Amino acid sequence: MKISIERNALLRAVSQAQSVVERRNTIPILSNVLIEAEGDSASFRATDLDIEVVDKATAMVERAGATTVAAVTLHEIVRKLPDGAQVKLTDDGASGRLTVEAGRSNFSLATLPKEDFPVMATSEYTANFSAPAPMLRRLFDKSKFAISTEETRYYLNGVFMHVAEESGGQVLRCVATDGHRLARIDADLPDGAATMPGVIVPRKTVGELRKLLDDDDMQVAVSVSESKVRFATPEITLTSKVIDGTFPDYTRVIPAGNTRKLEVDAAEFAKAVDRVATVSSERSRAVKLVLDEDRLVLSVNAPDSGNAEEELVVAYGDEPLEIGFNAKYLLEIAGQVDKENAVFMFNSSGDPTLMREGNDTSAVYVVMPMRV
Amino acid sequence: MKISIERNALLRAVSQAQSVVERRNTIPILSNVLIEAEGDSASFRATDLDIEVVDKATAMVERAGATTVAAVTLHEIVRKLPDGAQVKLTDDGASGRLTVEAGRSNFSLATLPKEDFPVMATSEYTANFSAPAPMLRRLFDKSKFAISTEETRYYLNGVFMHVAEESGGQVLRCVATDGHRLARIDADLPDGAATMPGVIVPRKTVGELRKLLDDDDMQVAVSVSESKVRFATPEITLTSKVIDGTFPDYTRVIPAGNTRKLEVDAAEFAKAVDRVATVSSERSRAVKLVLDEDRLVLSVNAPDSGNAEEELVVAYGDEPLEIGFNAKYLLEIAGQVDKENAVFMFNSSGDPTLMREGNDTSAVYVVMPMRV
Repeated sequence: MKISIERNALLRAVSQAQSVVERRNTIPILSNVLIEAEGDSASFRATDLDIEVVDKATAMVERAGATTVAAVTLHEIVRKLPDGAQVKLTDDGASGRLTVEAGRSNFSLATLPKEDFPVMATSEYTANFSAPAPMLRRLFDKSKFAISTEETRYYLNGVFMHVAEESGGQVLRCVATDGHRLARIDADLPDGAATMPGVIVPRKTVGELRKLLDDDDMQVAVSVSESKVRFATPEITLTSKVIDGTFPDYTRVIPAGNTRKLEVDAAEFAKAVDRVATVSSERSRAVKLVLDEDRLVLSVNAPDSGNAEEELVVAYGDEPLEIGFNAKYLLEIAGQVDKENAVFMFNSSGDPTLMREGNDTSAVYVVMPMRV
Repeated sequence: MKISIERNALLRAVSQAQSVVERRNTIPILSNVLIEAEGDSASFRATDLDIEVVDKATAMVERAGATTVAAVTLHEIVRKLPDGAQVKLTDDGASGRLTVEAGRSNFSLATLPKEDFPVMATSEYTANFSAPAPMLRRLFDKSKFAISTEETRYYLNGVFMHVAEESGGQVLRCVATDGHRLARIDADLPDGAATMPGVIVPRKTVGELRKLLDDDDMQVAVSVSESKVRFATPEITLTSKVIDGTFPDYTRVIPAGNTRKLEVDAAEFAKAVDRVATVSSERSRAVKLVLDEDRLVLSVNAPDSGNAEEELVVAYGDEPLEIGFNAKYLLEIAGQVDKENAVFMFNSSGDPTLMREGNDTSAVYVVMPMRV
């Protein structure tokens, strides 16, 4: 293999690869990126056996071929090369070394045979559809904070992407929950998505996927089967196993009968919660909300260090109510509100509370109360 | 005590205090800041028993008094208050609580009696002088990287500030070393400094002092005794014990007879060192320098992962030389060069090497070679 490639194109390709690679590997080849050069491009493939990413970049291929080299080292080298440099990658196949040349810099890196690289088996996908990047970004960005980190509840360690019925029509829906809070985000169902099985997209995949979604004009090709999901742009293909488990029936958790409505400026609310929570150093700080006619008092009482209270002018017309929440959970859901006011729907101080952005029901959040 | 103070002034004062406070304290009062209000100002005092900082801020004092309250909590609260808010601090003396009010926010924080706060004893200072902030900044910024982190060599855990003889005159000098590298920085001796004893300013004090030195037009009042050093601006007074030990005779370490001169663009040199070091994952990476007529080849050889080589055009007219250094040390001293080229003076591959910025001898660095 002998190729020449522009430094920035190489950096982008290798960045995504090294991020999929696990830092501590007992299997040496999993630390490597598989470079395959042919025609007028080179592809960079990395895997942790659950996720595989392939990133294509335009290259001048003088001699086609393939090899594998440490992803993190290659990334570090390319990152430190000057902007605009032309990088030559040469592997003569015999020496077990890949040389990396740019200007007066010359590196020789240990390689491992390309035959040992575990390329992910191809799948039959049940559904193939195309979705705009901003739509996927919204579905995953607004739900991922609620992903559980408890490894024993592995079926909650991801975002449940599926087709759901909503007010008579079908939507593409992402749901995540850790048992304390839940996010349910809907989007218009893309053509061809109706046949897709519901899949739990693992947390790490959600993180890697995010890097494909920055371009507002990008269309992303999505393919889904019972066991795998694939997201592809013209340059990057991200394939991931999905979590082999059953996502619980979340619909029972979303309260339908909550009638006490509070409307509040989301940013002001978040700042006030953040301030009153300061006095408590406990990890699960309880914030008490006391609601009265158009008036919300937030308070925290920490016997050792002190207490805090803050009043907000809000829209609330129901009976007085006292209810407590974990400050972190309140902050996180308030942080999801983009423009509109946050609307909270309460029932009693012991029941789950629902939050949405204004009157938009395409993103709803549920948070369990705490005794205060 | 009852005072009203502008949020930004309060934030600045409390920031410096909370940074001196140690995060893990077995003595509760050491977590607190002592607030003393009188006349038209309030002072905020914090200590870790080795360093004491007092920060004064203009305040409307309705009722003079003093109390102590958790520094970190107060800082967090003030930081989260909106810019421009007017903050009221009230302590009625009896309740054991300090109330903090701003807008619709209301906090009540546990206090500890002001009598329990350990105020540092005042000292007789042997020397008092005034120095411009940029001068002190240069002295400490350029030397602190070489401070030793080995606790057993406690006398190297700081910057040795003293008066030295240099080319017939006296200079104010800062020296730091960890046995592998050394920095020696000189400045004009300020009026009144000649009588000062040499003192070892501890690492933490150097860090805290840095915050007093951002303003280019500031004159800093410096006072030095055998056991303490004090730096004061009109607002902030930082007093610190000095390290009770003898700084070794560093003059013997600075080579005088090195004649082989290399002149190189410091930024280009640092980037090249950084790049070639990439291939080795060891903590103390050795970089080999091979010098020949106007040519420098940097190389790293890591048997497991590969090797790297880079060539630089330099000014060198002496005999060929091969010498190895710790990559991190080379990067750090190259990073000290502000504008001019880095000038290295070598003797042999086993002797300490000297580095300076161009022909400026007011900042010299020594680095020990490594066998490569």
